[in-house]
Amino acid sequence: MNSSVKQAMADLPLHPFSPFAIELPTYVANTLSAPVLVSIFAAGCAVVFLVTYGIVQRTRPTMSGGDLAVALWFALCGCIHLFFEGYFSYNAFDMASKTDIFGQLWKEYALSDSRYMSQDAFTVCMETVTAVLWGPMSFACVYFIIADHPLRHPFQLIISLGQLYGDILYYAICTFQEVVFDVVYCRPERFYFWAYYFLCNFFWIVIPLWLIWQSASETARAFAKVKAASAGKKTQ
Amino acid sequence: MNSSVKQAMADLPLHPFSPFAIELPTYVANTLSAPVLVSIFAAGCAVVFLVTYGIVQRTRPTMSGGDLAVALWFALCGCIHLFFEGYFSYNAFDMASKTDIFGQLWKEYALSDSRYMSQDAFTVCMETVTAVLWGPMSFACVYFIIADHPLRHPFQLIISLGQLYGDILYYAICTFQEVVFDVVYCRPERFYFWAYYFLCNFFWIVIPLWLIWQSASETARAFAKVKAASAGKKTQ
Repeated sequence: MNSSVKQAMADLPLHPFSPFAIELPTYVANTLSAPVLVSIFAAGCAVVFLVTYGIVQRTRPTMSGGDLAVALWFALCGCIHLFFEGYFSYNAFDMASKTDIFGQLWKEYALSDSRYMSQDAFTVCMETVTAVLWGPMSFACVYFIIADHPLRHPFQLIISLGQLYGDILYYAICTFQEVVFDVVYCRPERFYFWAYYFLCNFFWIVIPLWLIWQSASETARAFAKVKAASAGKKTQ
Repeated sequence: MNSSVKQAMADLPLHPFSPFAIELPTYVANTLSAPVLVSIFAAGCAVVFLVTYGIVQRTRPTMSGGDLAVALWFALCGCIHLFFEGYFSYNAFDMASKTDIFGQLWKEYALSDSRYMSQDAFTVCMETVTAVLWGPMSFACVYFIIADHPLRHPFQLIISLGQLYGDILYYAICTFQEVVFDVVYCRPERFYFWAYYFLCNFFWIVIPLWLIWQSASETARAFAKVKAASAGKKTQ
């Protein structure tokens, strides 16, 4: 190998993200393996579920299984949006150098979507809205569910639609870039595409769709009852 | 001027959009002037308002002024989303060559935002969601308002949040591209920035915010009434 080829290879940006041509001069490799990182994330989710379950059992032990599941979901969403996605939003311009737990988790995830490393405009803006709006509102929604508050369904509807729309645009823009401009943000191994990019985000398609349906139906039922009651009064 | 400079200038893409370096080989100049195009658009809005007003007067003449205003708004949104933005979504890959009314209107607007000419991934995806989902849902909402249907507020909330979130991302991404990457999609004249880019989209910030507030309050009030009625029954 001659020296100019060696030099050219030494100048290549050494990072594992796709497309390999993106330049990440501050990139630092992860020290934790993928199974360790995924286990830490799962353990974090389990802690959030357990703490929320404990709070619900103390404050409203009669809560239905369905409402409990929705409260657990929004507690998890609140933590992920505010802390994990908030971390990304705050550090968006220097993600590739981060080596703390959240930094390593984002670098592992970015193997399936390098937009998290490259200050992609849509990703930063969407994640910032998610962290700043849907994060705190998710915690408020947990409180509204526990308190059986009249604002529960407006909040559930707003957060869920925000998550769903953000996720639809997230998938759509990534697909558009690949189909139209031949830009692929995911590494070639299919594992990253299906396990990280597709599966991790698909939860925020299916569950919000279900919660939007539930909130819209419950709200329509409440308005129908109010209308029936007011019609009943008029005919009395 | 030597021949190579002449040749380089002749090869420049001749279009009025910013950044001037974007290549639009199929660009055809508008034949209608800006005042004519704006007048046609305003006349179209007036026709939508008049037809909707006529329908409301025939079907529910007792409707309150507030509900009438919201019905007129959603009728206009339905037409703009489904037909005007639907036109963009359908023709996104060949907007620069379009010379019909909608094509000329979009080319006039794109003087303030060239993403509508350049197959920008976010713009195409967001406009497609707007046309396909918020368009038809806006017409359904007009019907729900006229019919005093229990689904009016869920629909009003969903459409308004969709419009608001899309618009926030629209402004945010454009600002991000300018601040971070120094890419300016608006022509240098301040008129285009303020009259087209800022003002035309600002309606979809202020009005949806107000309608989200209204729907969330009305919904909370309905749930509070249902809860109070059920508590009243239990104590009887």
